[in-house]
Amino acid sequence: MPKCRDEVDQRILDAALARILQVGIRRSSLDDIARRSGINRVTIYRRFSGKDKLIEAVLERETERMLTEVGSILTDAEDIDERIEQTVLYVLRQTRMHRLVRQLLDVAPEEALTFYTVHGGEMVALGIGYIADLLDRAQHARLIARYDSEPIAEMIARLAHSLMLTPKGGVDFTVDEATHHFVRTTIVPMVKYGIATSSKEITR
Amino acid sequence: MPKCRDEVDQRILDAALARILQVGIRRSSLDDIARRSGINRVTIYRRFSGKDKLIEAVLERETERMLTEVGSILTDAEDIDERIEQTVLYVLRQTRMHRLVRQLLDVAPEEALTFYTVHGGEMVALGIGYIADLLDRAQHARLIARYDSEPIAEMIARLAHSLMLTPKGGVDFTVDEATHHFVRTTIVPMVKYGIATSSKEITR
Repeated sequence: MPKCRDEVDQRILDAALARILQVGIRRSSLDDIARRSGINRVTIYRRFSGKDKLIEAVLERETERMLTEVGSILTDAEDIDERIEQTVLYVLRQTRMHRLVRQLLDVAPEEALTFYTVHGGEMVALGIGYIADLLDRAQHARLIARYDSEPIAEMIARLAHSLMLTPKGGVDFTVDEATHHFVRTTIVPMVKYGIATSSKEITR
Repeated sequence: MPKCRDEVDQRILDAALARILQVGIRRSSLDDIARRSGINRVTIYRRFSGKDKLIEAVLERETERMLTEVGSILTDAEDIDERIEQTVLYVLRQTRMHRLVRQLLDVAPEEALTFYTVHGGEMVALGIGYIADLLDRAQHARLIARYDSEPIAEMIARLAHSLMLTPKGGVDFTVDEATHHFVRTTIVPMVKYGIATSSKEITR
């Protein structure tokens, strides 16, 4: 769920994001962020209780923004397979190509990795929650089968997380055609039907 | 497939592993490794063409070792569900608890993360290949349904990769009971039956 942030919070978060994109997380200080946002250090501290929490809030807001954009694709595509495929491709592309991911890996790679791994729980949780919510809504609209959405959401979010950090290994997810094929043949059926739970469900 | 390494190679790899566990990757030099193994720098260089390739070979050998151990569990457990569950749990536990993972994250965390992400393609590829091979053998023995093993292997290897780096998020994979439940209800059926490919396969 997006948190309600007032205009002052938003200005602080904007300044923090801009600064992070410029010099990375470690070298961004509350003083820099205060200067850039025109909001004093004490207010920033009071609202976010310190730099770590502020950075967390920045990452959270960026993840939410990205996920909000996903909703719009869902209405554009034609049939349900196409809609699932486009949504999953968008999520995979965004987790890799988002400016915060690319820029941070560029400006301060090792530091960025720490944030996407050791401190990545919140990001993974947001992703799982969002995907589960999409699945629930699709189930409610009878577009896909009824199944427990949480484990499928976890599998997809974890796939995206692993691909964001290490895109090559098996399927080369830096190549569009390979990515499309994998999504179409593996993720789309998984989203549409869930996981088979008895041998009667096996046809091939 | 494990590479054939002669005794000299093994001594070099042992010395490199010991040194890495002691001081991390960056601070391990070929000189240190030469001293510890009693094999001169030129020979090491000639056999592994430099430190980067040597480190890669160390990580590869450790991954292979871990995967070889997996094979033995497969024969111990009673029924097929139990065997799949135990194997998956072992893989997940090992990817997180292996001495190279823990020690390296301890000695040089940011550096370790680089190796498990930016340079993690080889490790992911080994994992996928190994899991696909296990699945193929189980299919051949008619223990599980026939399906394309590669995408399922990729999903499982990517899950393990993501969990190794960020164990909490959705299901808390640091808690045994939660991990067992997820593996039993999601991974075991996926391994046993593959992914459903038509709506006829949906029973719930």
